[in-house]
Amino acid sequence: MAEVRQDAVSGRWVIIATERAARPHDFHVGRGGPRGGFCPFCEGNEDRTPPEIAAVRPAGGRPNGPGWQVRVVPNKFPALQPGAEGYDRGGSIHRVVGGHGAHEVIIESPEHLLSPVQLSPERFALVMRTCRDRYRALIEDERISYVLVFKNVGERAGASIEHTHSQLIAVPVMPKRVAEEMRRCEAFYRDESECLFCSMLAEELDVGERIVADCEGYVVLSPYAARFPFELWVLPKEHHWHFHELDAAQIGALARVLHEVLARLEACLREPPFNYLIHTAPVSDGEAEHYHWHIEVIPRVTHVAGFEWGTGFYINPMEPEAAARHLREVSDEELRNRNAAALAVETTSVESLAGKEQL
Amino acid sequence: MAEVRQDAVSGRWVIIATERAARPHDFHVGRGGPRGGFCPFCEGNEDRTPPEIAAVRPAGGRPNGPGWQVRVVPNKFPALQPGAEGYDRGGSIHRVVGGHGAHEVIIESPEHLLSPVQLSPERFALVMRTCRDRYRALIEDERISYVLVFKNVGERAGASIEHTHSQLIAVPVMPKRVAEEMRRCEAFYRDESECLFCSMLAEELDVGERIVADCEGYVVLSPYAARFPFELWVLPKEHHWHFHELDAAQIGALARVLHEVLARLEACLREPPFNYLIHTAPVSDGEAEHYHWHIEVIPRVTHVAGFEWGTGFYINPMEPEAAARHLREVSDEELRNRNAAALAVETTSVESLAGKEQL
Repeated sequence: MAEVRQDAVSGRWVIIATERAARPHDFHVGRGGPRGGFCPFCEGNEDRTPPEIAAVRPAGGRPNGPGWQVRVVPNKFPALQPGAEGYDRGGSIHRVVGGHGAHEVIIESPEHLLSPVQLSPERFALVMRTCRDRYRALIEDERISYVLVFKNVGERAGASIEHTHSQLIAVPVMPKRVAEEMRRCEAFYRDESECLFCSMLAEELDVGERIVADCEGYVVLSPYAARFPFELWVLPKEHHWHFHELDAAQIGALARVLHEVLARLEACLREPPFNYLIHTAPVSDGEAEHYHWHIEVIPRVTHVAGFEWGTGFYINPMEPEAAARHLREVSDEELRNRNAAALAVETTSVESLAGKEQL
Repeated sequence: MAEVRQDAVSGRWVIIATERAARPHDFHVGRGGPRGGFCPFCEGNEDRTPPEIAAVRPAGGRPNGPGWQVRVVPNKFPALQPGAEGYDRGGSIHRVVGGHGAHEVIIESPEHLLSPVQLSPERFALVMRTCRDRYRALIEDERISYVLVFKNVGERAGASIEHTHSQLIAVPVMPKRVAEEMRRCEAFYRDESECLFCSMLAEELDVGERIVADCEGYVVLSPYAARFPFELWVLPKEHHWHFHELDAAQIGALARVLHEVLARLEACLREPPFNYLIHTAPVSDGEAEHYHWHIEVIPRVTHVAGFEWGTGFYINPMEPEAAARHLREVSDEELRNRNAAALAVETTSVESLAGKEQL
């Protein structure tokens, strides 16, 4: 029998098919191998992107030249741009706001890697730190209402370039989904004098069956009303509402936890297409402290169809409890092998970097 | 420069890329041709679906045998089922409801057609009438909160069987998206003493640039804050909140208008994958009369990625004004050719049907 579960954070309903015992291989849709051809994100092709906004160059070097580990550039086809006219016009029915904002690409490696799991956790920490720093820079702009950091991996998840990268879009109005979560967090706090996420975390840790990892101050769980098979949330155990206030140690721990859980996901679903995104409180909102920042990981292994578009309901053919169990059961050996592959990439990269620096 | 537009009905924001002049062929993603193999929806294979719930048999005939034009069967893998335990349990955080509901398939033709556009408008009216009748039957059940009729065409739009069909899911709780639209309609009515949709329709007809069709009591338009390229709404001009109260003449007119607009869409985007869905007021809600039923048509020619999941924002690379213009410009000749092809199918079908009846 199916169950209809409500997500406490968003209020949305999900039909969880509990009768069919779905297995991970039911969701092996594949991401597609390397497509070949020219890649504007590879080291040496810096002149093929718009000029860089920021970069991590551990051994120094000129902007827009080689020698970087992480590089931030404006999106070549930006959804929004800094300096666009910032009007706000309401008609009798329609409201429209000018396209002031930002759309940046965080290129996560100089090598042509297809997933952040191919980076070592230390290099992945450089990526997360760069995201935090860009977040910090962009929220200085008062006309920006919200900054979203997100990642698309695989064409089916919306990635048009396969070279591993994240993106960031800064928008001039408050996004609906975040506003909705904030509203529900505020209402819960008013009623219960406690953070909704903290309360949920306590219950989930107590029950245990949806927990995938619990270490270094972070919990990874498959949410009770997961929309998608193997959907995951990464939450800090300590209550905090702003991702951009993480210090170096917290970023390092986050990168290790997220890296491990993505490695488990890739092992379980054989390199699935996926998205992840960082939900953090806006800077300007007075009720921000009721919120609890977190990361949502969304494997893209099923199709969203007319029913979902029409209702905001989702149908999830995989029980979150079973998904969590499969992810916990990925063997240490498999994770070690994947890490070894990542480190092999690493060594090559450090050598080629050293070679380039001698030029 | 991009524009950030707000949809008055749902409150969601859409980034409309107005600088790149996108053309219809930028969105030719294809639907995939006939996949071949066994089809459980074709005439003669009635024993390969669960026993039928309803059927249109103009020349009579036994249930679950041939001779039908439209056939309704339970979904073989139902998301929800009649008679499932109807509990409603709230924990400290999580809420869950039993899976009582219905999940039906409306098979739209005995022939192996891939799109409702291949039906004549008259036969398409039989399909719409059947949807209305199933809607009427299901809302009799007090435990049902909402019934959604929807259609998935093409694998990318979530269709697992290519033979043209619609689906219907009856759910035991009120869907979020409909509740949201109802709330905004009610608020608008409170402020303006007028229906939000009626008010929008008047403004859109006045401006004209987003109108695709205006005939037989229906307006088809590309909404001001369209989420997707070539998204369309079909709205009755006269204010009404319940789809299921349409009479035979109104169903006939709706079928003709929707058929024409889908033919235009197929001509313009070369048989795109798409969804459509019927948004109607729930029967039990006291505020239903502020609502305005309508159909949303969603071509699935772009990917939804991390940004959309994270914010509820959409990025639409095609101005709705340009989309409406392209759809208006589909030539009468092209539409006539497509109708002729549909009628050819029709003739064959009537013959084969007659043949079978003589057995």
